[in-house]
Amino acid sequence: MKLSLNTATVKKASLAEAAKLCADNGIEGIGPWRDVVEQAGGAAEAKKLLDAHGLTVTSLCRGGFFHLGIEDTKKAIDEASTLDAKELILVVGGMPYGSKDLGKARQNVRDSIEQLVPFARERNVRLAIEPLHPMFCADRAVVSTLGQALDIAELFTPSEVGVVVDTYHVWWDPELEKQIARAGERIASYQVCDWVVPLPADMLLGRGHVGDGHIDFPYLTSLVKAAGYTGFTEVEIFNQVVWDTPAAETIATVRNRWNLVTGLDD
Amino acid sequence: MKLSLNTATVKKASLAEAAKLCADNGIEGIGPWRDVVEQAGGAAEAKKLLDAHGLTVTSLCRGGFFHLGIEDTKKAIDEASTLDAKELILVVGGMPYGSKDLGKARQNVRDSIEQLVPFARERNVRLAIEPLHPMFCADRAVVSTLGQALDIAELFTPSEVGVVVDTYHVWWDPELEKQIARAGERIASYQVCDWVVPLPADMLLGRGHVGDGHIDFPYLTSLVKAAGYTGFTEVEIFNQVVWDTPAAETIATVRNRWNLVTGLDD
Repeated sequence: MKLSLNTATVKKASLAEAAKLCADNGIEGIGPWRDVVEQAGGAAEAKKLLDAHGLTVTSLCRGGFFHLGIEDTKKAIDEASTLDAKELILVVGGMPYGSKDLGKARQNVRDSIEQLVPFARERNVRLAIEPLHPMFCADRAVVSTLGQALDIAELFTPSEVGVVVDTYHVWWDPELEKQIARAGERIASYQVCDWVVPLPADMLLGRGHVGDGHIDFPYLTSLVKAAGYTGFTEVEIFNQVVWDTPAAETIATVRNRWNLVTGLDD
Repeated sequence: MKLSLNTATVKKASLAEAAKLCADNGIEGIGPWRDVVEQAGGAAEAKKLLDAHGLTVTSLCRGGFFHLGIEDTKKAIDEASTLDAKELILVVGGMPYGSKDLGKARQNVRDSIEQLVPFARERNVRLAIEPLHPMFCADRAVVSTLGQALDIAELFTPSEVGVVVDTYHVWWDPELEKQIARAGERIASYQVCDWVVPLPADMLLGRGHVGDGHIDFPYLTSLVKAAGYTGFTEVEIFNQVVWDTPAAETIATVRNRWNLVTGLDD
């Protein structure tokens, strides 16, 4: 397995800085967020920059937020295509303000993806549904489990719609072993960070470096490998303390913890 | 359906104060926590007090925390028996400090319940497993879904081990409809409070009055009723703002929101 840096881990770095640090540290993949792509001059410029450092674009974050419509996701698909990112990660969105109708929000996710699949197929981009931890159900993603993501993905072919396995979002799931096996070739991205307690005030920012919390990474990695996944592993950490640390130091930590992800000596 | 006050909703009130407010407001049930029972002079004294107000003890909170052993839960079973609380609610506990072995913690829950069932049966107390929201998996309860709670409960008879349906913990679950139907006569307690966003810094205290958040109570209530549940509905709200409100005012709000739970005019 090969390591990829999700740019959210070094939030304050430019794409150029992040790319250089990856190259300097022997990290061969990068998963950019759209804001840093835009700040780098747009997808075409960003692609040149990443090519110059020999980096594979392992995913683009993100489309979705379907409670606000699908137009923004179409733009994201075009950007992914330009970047040659085969996987566009979808954070599907929460419930509209004040709504109590979870079923309707979930139906809207299915309908939105159905509308987007032909558009994405033409551009050689796979839509990758990311189940988010159930604590984000109301405000960020009404897709809360891997099983639920697969129920939607399986309405389409594996090359059209995949799923994301992010350790932080799925580690608690009693059905995890079964659902990762079920996912098989639909696993579009494997993202890692740790669950630390207590969670901070802003629960979006509670993620830890691999090894700092309660997640058994070698076990989860073994499940993903057994399901046939051979892609990159993206390290994606949302954490204010990590963001306040110099990017070079953060990336060195990411690199040093890599053997904890695989359970093997590096 | 009948209303019951879980004493956690009026955390600063004594059992005597809570009981009087229930009686004054036409609330026929009460679900005490063990600390207020102890402060009222123990289970035998508390039972006299609650009888004097004509209150049914709908549950006792709580046993569990099995990562610390089972002795404390035995005491809780004895207290429930003295209180004539037929249901002892179990918050099963999290992972031991520093542990990354979720499977072992979950096996320990099954083993602990197996050891406790004969003890509880002799005392005419049912053990009621409460699945907690997955965000509490590491530190409070490794049982995270109703389906998982039922997988354990079904190792025993329905009169020995039941499950709790707490709207706050289960509302997001894509399998909710199926699992509540499966639970049937094992539903030992139906607890309600709302999911409000954003969650406050201490996520234990993020629960809202019925109607203040994203949960569709009439829908959840209809599922519980369709499963055959005819017991009380306990209102249990952990929220610092609610706790800082005079208990009489809180109980009036609970009473006023009752029609939102049932979806019927009061």
